[in-house]
Amino acid sequence: MSKAQQLQLDAILRQGGLDTAGDVQKLRAAFNELMAQVPVAPDIQQRRLEVGGVTGIEVTVLGNGAENVILYFHGGVYVIGTAVASVPLVGDLVRRSGTRAITLEYRLGPEDPYPAAVQDARAAYEGLLAQGIAPDRIVLAGESAGGGLVVATLLALRDAGTPLPSCGYLMSPYADLTLSGQTLAEKQELDPVLTPDGLRARVPDYVGGADAADPRISPIFGDLSGLPPLLIQVGSHEVLLSDALRLAGRAARSDVAVTLEVTPGVPHVFQGFAGLLDEAGVALDRAAEFLKAQLAHP
Amino acid sequence: MSKAQQLQLDAILRQGGLDTAGDVQKLRAAFNELMAQVPVAPDIQQRRLEVGGVTGIEVTVLGNGAENVILYFHGGVYVIGTAVASVPLVGDLVRRSGTRAITLEYRLGPEDPYPAAVQDARAAYEGLLAQGIAPDRIVLAGESAGGGLVVATLLALRDAGTPLPSCGYLMSPYADLTLSGQTLAEKQELDPVLTPDGLRARVPDYVGGADAADPRISPIFGDLSGLPPLLIQVGSHEVLLSDALRLAGRAARSDVAVTLEVTPGVPHVFQGFAGLLDEAGVALDRAAEFLKAQLAHP
Repeated sequence: MSKAQQLQLDAILRQGGLDTAGDVQKLRAAFNELMAQVPVAPDIQQRRLEVGGVTGIEVTVLGNGAENVILYFHGGVYVIGTAVASVPLVGDLVRRSGTRAITLEYRLGPEDPYPAAVQDARAAYEGLLAQGIAPDRIVLAGESAGGGLVVATLLALRDAGTPLPSCGYLMSPYADLTLSGQTLAEKQELDPVLTPDGLRARVPDYVGGADAADPRISPIFGDLSGLPPLLIQVGSHEVLLSDALRLAGRAARSDVAVTLEVTPGVPHVFQGFAGLLDEAGVALDRAAEFLKAQLAHP
Repeated sequence: MSKAQQLQLDAILRQGGLDTAGDVQKLRAAFNELMAQVPVAPDIQQRRLEVGGVTGIEVTVLGNGAENVILYFHGGVYVIGTAVASVPLVGDLVRRSGTRAITLEYRLGPEDPYPAAVQDARAAYEGLLAQGIAPDRIVLAGESAGGGLVVATLLALRDAGTPLPSCGYLMSPYADLTLSGQTLAEKQELDPVLTPDGLRARVPDYVGGADAADPRISPIFGDLSGLPPLLIQVGSHEVLLSDALRLAGRAARSDVAVTLEVTPGVPHVFQGFAGLLDEAGVALDRAAEFLKAQLAHP
């Protein structure tokens, strides 16, 4: 772990900051341009596919088995982000965990507000089951809004009586769209990526006419009992730190096996910077160990 | 992990319950009698010693190196418990982590209320430093009140400018003597060991004339910045669950590296039941991995 790496990454992120509160189309274009600069490692293989009627990108590494699948949900406050933009991080995770992944092109607000994203995530998972893949060979994983979507999807599956996947892996989950977390203000100066105002501006795009405190939008308010083991990783330089803390707390109080790992001095979804930051690789390695321990036949 | 093991342990604990609210001397005698029934594994070696003017028991396993030391604080709401009663659990930890441990006979209330325990813990740590042991070869660990004492001691050492140990390992920490945690009521039916009334009855014994919300008594109220990495383990069947949750949250918000592991369905300091409960061994193995990763030369 290097303080110099942390400071360098912080400076880079502050330069490339997105105005999350601006026009949606411009924001998406700027985000996609930014993410297109992130290289995909040469050993990563990707192809478009459809699962349960939803498109996605299958990500794998030559030599990995196809039996175990990570169903992955990208970040972007439920409004921006794409499957392709998540491939570099998903590739890093796939390489370390010996699995394949499908990163999903779930529908976004404001064109398709809640519950579209949850419906797509659930349909894709049920599509995997329909292919004959056992639940205990599937992981749900996601970053930021995708982390919240993991829990929202687990709740929907649980309530429908569908067999649940082996576990959930959440990076910096966005899990409270009422924006009531105390680190929203506390960590504002330290967070080089997200701002409370930027988040607030996009909430209506996803919430639409629903209640932002609905547990399938903001799972920190839900009864999480019956969920499979969860690994939650978060940096301490995040306005969304308290989303992770409260989600872990709610899971614990609901008798769910939960591991929370807080890495100090690093930003939102720091796992995406494995080339720049030692902490990213360390966190992904720990996640891979967690996945292997939870999957029925790693 | 076995539900049958969990249920069996729960039944045993409910039979052997202590009336924490009763007379102190009777309570201590009953606790010591109960703990004397727990066998010490035959490979464990122990001897009385003194460190920094405080007595304790050195616990080791033949073949373990003496370079790395766990300074251990037993539980017992700062009023009951002894070093010798902690030897079975400390021995299990020592065997797995390849270290030696010193479990400390720190002073207890009501005879010696706060800050006696913190003074003894600090004196013992400084005694280890005075022996020439490097801080990064020392771990502070403890269970229940001993877990709270780990953090209180770290705060005292930090404030004094003393070099801090490599890390802290806390099992089911008792970290809020104002008893404000929401799981105190929420988990009352599920907890086979502790009750809110039993805890409340003993608070004045330790707090004495001080403020129960003082961070060196209740570290969930403290600024924890500058502390070394913490591993916090807790069961979900505990009235003290929210002590662990809030301590992890406070550490995270103070930019401390913290790992929180919540094991569902198990009671207070479940690591003490390694013979009965698979989860105990799993948790101690993970703790040993954490210690090895944090110690300078594992």
